[in-house]
Amino acid sequence: MNNKQKIYFFSETEVEGNKNMSDLLGGKGANIAEMCSLKIPVPPGFTITTQECVSFIKNKKISPGLKREIGNNIKKVEVASGKSFGGENPLLLSVRSGAPVSMPGMMETILNIGLTKKTIPLLIKKTKNEKFVYDSYRRLIMMYADVVMEKALKKNKTNLPIRDQMEKMLDKMKKKNKYKNDASVSSESWLDLSKKYLKLYEKCFGENFPDNELDQLDGAVRAVFSSWNGKRAKEYRAFEKIPSDMGTAVNVQTMVFGNMGVGCGTGVAFTRNPSSGEKSFYGEWLEDAQGEDVVAGLRTPSPILEKDGSEKSLERSIPKAFTKLNRIRTKLEKHFKDMQDIEFTIENKKLWMLQTRTGKRTGVASIKIATDMVDERLISKKEALLRVKPLQIYESLLKNIVTEDLEKNSPVSFGLPAGPGASSGSVVFSAEKAEALGKKGKKIILIREETSPEDIHGMHYSEGILTSRGGLTSHAALVARGWGKSCVVGCQDLSIDKGGRSATVGIHKIKEGDNITLNGSSGEIYLGKLRLYQNPIESAHSLNLLLGWADDVRKLKIRTNADTPEDCDRALGFGAEGIGLCRTEHMFFDEKRVHDFRKMILSNTTKERVKHLQRLLPYQTRDFYNILKKMDGKPVTVRLLDPPLHEFINIHKRELEVLALDLGVSKNSVEERVEALKESNPMLGHRGCRLGVSYPEITAMQSKALLGACFKLKKEGYKPMLEIMVPLVSHFKEFLNQKNIIKGVYDELRLKNKSSINFKIGTMIEVPRACLSSGQIAEHAEFFSFGTNDLTQTTFGFSRDDTGTFFPSYLENKIISVDPFEQIDEEGVGRLMEIAVQGARSTQKNLSIGICGEHGGEPKSIAFCKMLGLDYVSCSPYRVPIARLAAAQVEI
Amino acid sequence: MNNKQKIYFFSETEVEGNKNMSDLLGGKGANIAEMCSLKIPVPPGFTITTQECVSFIKNKKISPGLKREIGNNIKKVEVASGKSFGGENPLLLSVRSGAPVSMPGMMETILNIGLTKKTIPLLIKKTKNEKFVYDSYRRLIMMYADVVMEKALKKNKTNLPIRDQMEKMLDKMKKKNKYKNDASVSSESWLDLSKKYLKLYEKCFGENFPDNELDQLDGAVRAVFSSWNGKRAKEYRAFEKIPSDMGTAVNVQTMVFGNMGVGCGTGVAFTRNPSSGEKSFYGEWLEDAQGEDVVAGLRTPSPILEKDGSEKSLERSIPKAFTKLNRIRTKLEKHFKDMQDIEFTIENKKLWMLQTRTGKRTGVASIKIATDMVDERLISKKEALLRVKPLQIYESLLKNIVTEDLEKNSPVSFGLPAGPGASSGSVVFSAEKAEALGKKGKKIILIREETSPEDIHGMHYSEGILTSRGGLTSHAALVARGWGKSCVVGCQDLSIDKGGRSATVGIHKIKEGDNITLNGSSGEIYLGKLRLYQNPIESAHSLNLLLGWADDVRKLKIRTNADTPEDCDRALGFGAEGIGLCRTEHMFFDEKRVHDFRKMILSNTTKERVKHLQRLLPYQTRDFYNILKKMDGKPVTVRLLDPPLHEFINIHKRELEVLALDLGVSKNSVEERVEALKESNPMLGHRGCRLGVSYPEITAMQSKALLGACFKLKKEGYKPMLEIMVPLVSHFKEFLNQKNIIKGVYDELRLKNKSSINFKIGTMIEVPRACLSSGQIAEHAEFFSFGTNDLTQTTFGFSRDDTGTFFPSYLENKIISVDPFEQIDEEGVGRLMEIAVQGARSTQKNLSIGICGEHGGEPKSIAFCKMLGLDYVSCSPYRVPIARLAAAQVEI
Repeated sequence: MNNKQKIYFFSETEVEGNKNMSDLLGGKGANIAEMCSLKIPVPPGFTITTQECVSFIKNKKISPGLKREIGNNIKKVEVASGKSFGGENPLLLSVRSGAPVSMPGMMETILNIGLTKKTIPLLIKKTKNEKFVYDSYRRLIMMYADVVMEKALKKNKTNLPIRDQMEKMLDKMKKKNKYKNDASVSSESWLDLSKKYLKLYEKCFGENFPDNELDQLDGAVRAVFSSWNGKRAKEYRAFEKIPSDMGTAVNVQTMVFGNMGVGCGTGVAFTRNPSSGEKSFYGEWLEDAQGEDVVAGLRTPSPILEKDGSEKSLERSIPKAFTKLNRIRTKLEKHFKDMQDIEFTIENKKLWMLQTRTGKRTGVASIKIATDMVDERLISKKEALLRVKPLQIYESLLKNIVTEDLEKNSPVSFGLPAGPGASSGSVVFSAEKAEALGKKGKKIILIREETSPEDIHGMHYSEGILTSRGGLTSHAALVARGWGKSCVVGCQDLSIDKGGRSATVGIHKIKEGDNITLNGSSGEIYLGKLRLYQNPIESAHSLNLLLGWADDVRKLKIRTNADTPEDCDRALGFGAEGIGLCRTEHMFFDEKRVHDFRKMILSNTTKERVKHLQRLLPYQTRDFYNILKKMDGKPVTVRLLDPPLHEFINIHKRELEVLALDLGVSKNSVEERVEALKESNPMLGHRGCRLGVSYPEITAMQSKALLGACFKLKKEGYKPMLEIMVPLVSHFKEFLNQKNIIKGVYDELRLKNKSSINFKIGTMIEVPRACLSSGQIAEHAEFFSFGTNDLTQTTFGFSRDDTGTFFPSYLENKIISVDPFEQIDEEGVGRLMEIAVQGARSTQKNLSIGICGEHGGEPKSIAFCKMLGLDYVSCSPYRVPIARLAAAQVEI
Repeated sequence: MNNKQKIYFFSETEVEGNKNMSDLLGGKGANIAEMCSLKIPVPPGFTITTQECVSFIKNKKISPGLKREIGNNIKKVEVASGKSFGGENPLLLSVRSGAPVSMPGMMETILNIGLTKKTIPLLIKKTKNEKFVYDSYRRLIMMYADVVMEKALKKNKTNLPIRDQMEKMLDKMKKKNKYKNDASVSSESWLDLSKKYLKLYEKCFGENFPDNELDQLDGAVRAVFSSWNGKRAKEYRAFEKIPSDMGTAVNVQTMVFGNMGVGCGTGVAFTRNPSSGEKSFYGEWLEDAQGEDVVAGLRTPSPILEKDGSEKSLERSIPKAFTKLNRIRTKLEKHFKDMQDIEFTIENKKLWMLQTRTGKRTGVASIKIATDMVDERLISKKEALLRVKPLQIYESLLKNIVTEDLEKNSPVSFGLPAGPGASSGSVVFSAEKAEALGKKGKKIILIREETSPEDIHGMHYSEGILTSRGGLTSHAALVARGWGKSCVVGCQDLSIDKGGRSATVGIHKIKEGDNITLNGSSGEIYLGKLRLYQNPIESAHSLNLLLGWADDVRKLKIRTNADTPEDCDRALGFGAEGIGLCRTEHMFFDEKRVHDFRKMILSNTTKERVKHLQRLLPYQTRDFYNILKKMDGKPVTVRLLDPPLHEFINIHKRELEVLALDLGVSKNSVEERVEALKESNPMLGHRGCRLGVSYPEITAMQSKALLGACFKLKKEGYKPMLEIMVPLVSHFKEFLNQKNIIKGVYDELRLKNKSSINFKIGTMIEVPRACLSSGQIAEHAEFFSFGTNDLTQTTFGFSRDDTGTFFPSYLENKIISVDPFEQIDEEGVGRLMEIAVQGARSTQKNLSIGICGEHGGEPKSIAFCKMLGLDYVSCSPYRVPIARLAAAQVEI
């Protein structure tokens, strides 16, 4: 891109740019031009292109050509505004940055350029408003000192930033004169303050404040150019991966004044409610104010609409300007086909538009606006699908703390936001207690140092979970996110007292039964029971509408990870089309069962083991029967026992004694067996199909339970679609070994039932070797499912449980920017997946391949899976709607 | 292969086969034919082809065509031998199996076929030796009953195998008649026994013993055919990966008799000494004996050569036959150009050769024979290089137990043979004691439950290591093999008593200071100090000769893994061309240093850590200086700190207290820090370059030590060739991060020393992601070295420390046949290596790539590395000679 035109002029009668030129004019400049074309009143001005910024940074000076062009354009502005820059009826200008990509907080603004010893009396004469002129002047000095001198040139010789020093002087002046607010300050006081500012300016920078309008403009333009390479901006770009060679445009525009008294004002508004998405005008304004006063919070702004109940509403205060603004609101939405975020100023009852841009919105609003706009025929269904970010759906389903309560309370501490959404309830410190009270319907917050698989049941019955240790990928975090539960982890202030019935957070003591509230989206922790709200039912209507359209478009199937009939219900409600991962081990954590399960583990002979497995068979059969029945006609992938056995016997001495008694052996011998089961690296140990190979009787029992359930359902007229999944296969012979056991069990049941059923035997692809030898495995397997959690661990060679020690320094050193456990690492893990898919499909062209790792619910990973040609993704129930939308977006 | 000729005849005047036809005639048949061609006296006969065996197994019958052919060939044998099958001057036949591939112990033999009620008196008449004839008859009945009836037809109706029953009857007869040995049995007793055998035969099989020579032959041929699919043979083939469709040939040959009294005998011999390789005739014979009597061990055989001191030597007993045999010996070696293993029989002073084949030999003999034969111009140097198996070199370097002592002592127990070679010495139970006594020159055997990195120093000073736990890939096993130390692990009989100063093995008590002897090649454990011997110095001469030739041929460079100057000396002695892996962590295990190192680990701030690192700097500099000096002019790859830090603080409470005192903090706080360092999966935890990223000061200190040593050496006129290796990189940014630290240190030293040095910065490729993104890493790295130990762990997803629990069932279920930690798994790990090499070389065409895992010393893996285009392999010092030979063989 090499554009010769350095500046684009805009006024109500002449426009050179348009909304598609944001690369060159920045988002702000392009939209201002567009508004001019729409005959919307915008103060005349011009935009210096981003190219000029790039060349300024390269050459470290403003080119003579640009200087000339600025001069020419000022003349055009003088004509359009009927004012004169530095002369009679003085023209004042604003200078604002405007990059092609939104960089919030990175904006530099200098207002009131053109006020000098010469023009001040002229403007007073013209406006007959001395107070307004001096107010404007002190603002100019402060902004110039801050933006041009301090930030751009780094000239400040004092320690405190000059802006802070000036704010202090303003406060002092107001206190001394007992002014309640800015509006009540007298013109003398403003003049006095201006003089003090000028002195401070000289002291700080060793030079006088420029008293020439062209010098002021030149400084302001340079400052905006330089801001592109400021520290803050650079960091932001690095973080957001914004190219650093874009540059920012500079908007130079005729000042209009909201600070000239009654009939004047300035405001910001959204064309619809950005929080609920409702189609009603939403915004605030301040009478007699300029620039950023509305957002600065020094005075409380008034609403725009009368119905919001304020006497100072714009609708009531300046009805003509309101009517005009409301008409513009409709015009802008029709034109831009999206909700707009606008800024305006009213100067002596005349409305001027200063900016329009696409408005940010909550998840709920996003969904509501998108579906409403389809209804209003502003956008197509496909456009609506692209308007909503998949994670906004998740957000729309969460509970939040009522705003009033948030304002009244301060958090006592914070941890890592591990499970979004708010929760509040009564504190317990053990999973057992959580289960006992939760079952009775009490709202429970479970506090633990960290959680383990044994806490699962208690977590299930808790509203929220809070831990003192662990990171965003700790056990607690994973389980909470899987279940859509509010969760805060790694709160370092929190320490659980010995005895485990109370804790301290900083100076606060929390006892069992006390109420606390967690904000799992921010990590904040509050004492007491704050009120929560969930988004209204209408938003559910919009959501279903949107997801229905998504289903029409998407080709990727969406399954869910579910271990219980309750999970199934939830997931079916969210639109799941099957189960992609049912973990059989969770079924053993029940108190009664785990005892039998432990006896099985501690068996010394196959005979003993078979005996104890027999006891588990009816449980498992019933569990599988219930799940398969719920999912009737939909595929259900059940993974055979996967975790290392010692995970089940991480128990107290007392329990060991009971076990020993029950097994009829000595306590010592049980302890020895427990010790022998411990492993150096359990993640890489005796688990997955390795269990099934060394204890074929476990595979046989589970197969019997699964197939038995199917035969029963078939007899009852159901259509179970079972897929038995062998975990952690690295060599096709491991798979074959397990497949033969399953087939053996089937053959037995087939004869016994004198009937046959359809089911598949497949495998989880979760270690690199399985990917590399997928062709061989696909010769025998009937489906593949990627287990990207384990695959990520083995591909990188780090375990999720141990990354806490070095991930922080990796983030700090920018070695990784995205957690590969959240989003598929395409270069490494993704490449292995590609190799696996190619290998498998070259053996079996139509092999069903899915993914059931945590990544199955992450939008970018879903897009990647689609690209690889996968058939389905499977994710936790709460992520099913996200996946439905993400899968649709991939197709569009 | 479809051959129409069913049978190949051989005699001194007519030969149809030759030595290259072993596929069709079996090894035995082909070589018999070859001997006939060489005019060596062989009893006439014929070989039925392997194809006929295959078709017999398929059709379950002997084809009429083959029957006819057998008849025709018997006629030819009758002519050649001048005897008649079933008539006057009766021809007796032997029937022996002979497969294309040697299957030791799988051989079936039936002798003396043709003895019937009709031919017995004829033979007695002809030989005038009733005793011989009845001896031969009882042998026929026993072999026929065993091989034809029992093994082939499985007809036995009694429980005890018929052979055992018959042996018992023979013993009873000898006891009753007070016969000292078989030779003193009278003809009446043999006749009596034969009659008893016939009765038992009838009782067992419900039929009479066949009294027709053709029926006997038919039965014998069927039995040999059937033996190919016997249980033993099938299992052996499965284990040795021999195709099951080869079939066995059948050799039918005129019987000659060593059991006709004085001037008769039978023997086996090697054309050179199979143990030392010396060029001297080596073998044994028995006077008046038949068939397998020599190897059966019922009588003690006599030597062949007179010089071996026995009066009964063949040389002295039947000098004519000896001279003839000695001439044949030379002829065979010249012809076959290799040492032969021969069988012969002498019938009335006439020598008959029954078999010749390539002789099995020890490692020492293999090397000696190969180099001698080059000297004798029998074979070329290249052939010599192919004659020796790489692992035989290793074997040739080991100590062995003196044979006499072996015969006098029985092992008290055994474990897994983890480090080959024998060792004997005085027992200690702690590494400290081993070090203390070992330093004084005492020969020590270290006994531990299992070893850990903290035991390294003690292991270093021990002759042998014995553990009660752990498998072939346990820490003890790995370290022992690396150092070429004798080691037995996982001896389940062994339990170390509380207090750790004694142990029990079965019923035996072993106290500290007691002597024991280990055979690390077999896993056997002996009480007492058995005498050991190492192979003579001449074998070292042959070895050097052979390896010199290997060096001329090979292109792959051979480096070594060495951590100390002593390792360097050893490896240089073995011909290493550089260090491929120097592990810096081993340098910290010294008692004094580990204390400082622990203080570094337990530091809470960077400042503290830097302080403690400063203390370690001089140690490390000195260590590196010494190693680089030793390896002057040769590349030395040094790996930065790799293991998880908690490996260094696995210590007693008392030591913790000392540390706490020394650090000036509470014991609790040290304990907390130790606890915090523990990881769920240390293998996948905070280790490798992850340490260097989070503690850059460690990398800086090590770089300073390494580069500092180089600058010093350069000043002193040496040419250090340092290669700094960053471990466990999975993302190129990790590498860059570490590279920048090293470069920073270098820049500092360069300025300080006003000089520059050449060195490389590269990385270890040991996790799948590094292989997959090798192209990116190669943009920044100056060399790669595969760490195939970790790569194997992550590719399969199992940790070497935890495979003990499931590997046994994997072997049992034939899921794996080769330990992937010993030999590179080409399908999985190998494919990743291939991807890595391709990626790297596409970025940097000439990037130096090596391997420094355990696999670097394994012949098949070396061949694979060569195929991938690697530049070098690095292995433990003792494996360097193996690697030199293996690398040469790859080129040939």
